[in-house]
Amino acid sequence: MTNNRLQQQFDFIKEIDKEKLIKRQTLLTDGITHENDAEHAWHMAIMTLLLSEYSNEKIDTLKTISMLLIHDLVEIYAGDTYAYDEVSKLDQRERELMAADKIFGMLPGDQGSKFRELWDEFEEGDTPEAKFARSMDRIQPMMLNDATEGKMWMEHGVRLSQVMKRNEKIELGSKELWDYARETFILPNVEMGKIKKN
Amino acid sequence: MTNNRLQQQFDFIKEIDKEKLIKRQTLLTDGITHENDAEHAWHMAIMTLLLSEYSNEKIDTLKTISMLLIHDLVEIYAGDTYAYDEVSKLDQRERELMAADKIFGMLPGDQGSKFRELWDEFEEGDTPEAKFARSMDRIQPMMLNDATEGKMWMEHGVRLSQVMKRNEKIELGSKELWDYARETFILPNVEMGKIKKN
Repeated sequence: MTNNRLQQQFDFIKEIDKEKLIKRQTLLTDGITHENDAEHAWHMAIMTLLLSEYSNEKIDTLKTISMLLIHDLVEIYAGDTYAYDEVSKLDQRERELMAADKIFGMLPGDQGSKFRELWDEFEEGDTPEAKFARSMDRIQPMMLNDATEGKMWMEHGVRLSQVMKRNEKIELGSKELWDYARETFILPNVEMGKIKKN
Repeated sequence: MTNNRLQQQFDFIKEIDKEKLIKRQTLLTDGITHENDAEHAWHMAIMTLLLSEYSNEKIDTLKTISMLLIHDLVEIYAGDTYAYDEVSKLDQRERELMAADKIFGMLPGDQGSKFRELWDEFEEGDTPEAKFARSMDRIQPMMLNDATEGKMWMEHGVRLSQVMKRNEKIELGSKELWDYARETFILPNVEMGKIKKN
């Protein structure tokens, strides 16, 4: 019994190693290496430990971190969809739903359901934990884009209106972090021409 | 005030991005790419969510995960020390203590102390959380070594006595996981000659 359960758990643990090979658009602070999904999740988990004090509403830190650790696992099968790629975003939801069935279906029933619920909750974005997690998911790449002198914003010709549309939702998780992000990461990069004015 | 605190927090958040560039000896399941410390920490955090049920003693999951997320940050300055490199291990402790002062010193006092205490607790390995976290730190690379057909064990000519000496401490965190790891990851690889018999 236990052995079968343990075997399922380790099959999943081995499978999710593939998340380390899913590359994102974001560059690491070396300005060369593309970040991968596992690194991104690790970074946001530590950010949550440090920044949960700025959440608009009280949050369960373990739940928020769990959500962030697993929320990109679907990309093992569905691939990474760039925030400003409107074409690829059209069937993103459908691809990710199939991927969620596949990856969380590998786990023992109770744990698969728990992870799936966390993933659904993140996707829906309605609870305090999901709102804060989604804020992390937006601030972390912005921080790296700023740290790498806006290279990726320039390469994709990203406009202020796009950056605002995507990121103003940070405010739903934390007004304070949204103020900081706008002042520190967005506006100076508009001034410097890294983000197009409109 | 808040801004200064936030600035310290984001300076730290940006600095720890470097952990993604600290390469380990372990190979990912593609059998080619060397794992980095951030990926390793992410993997163990999810493993803890799934495997804490096998801990010998009841553990605080958030505390255990926090420990695992941050325990390798010192390697940003001290470098990765291979488990079976006896020379490099001689001054490892000294290098890591200086690194801990530096990295955790970047944070606001309260958060720096909290992270430092977690790091010390992991290093000392006495609490139920530290014991379980250290078990994860041993099982995760063993799982990957097994998944990549023992390539790294063979490259370093690793012996069963070394593997046992290092890994039998998994039992301190979880008897059940140690039984599983020995039967699944170690003994079959001795049989296949990937780990030298003695």
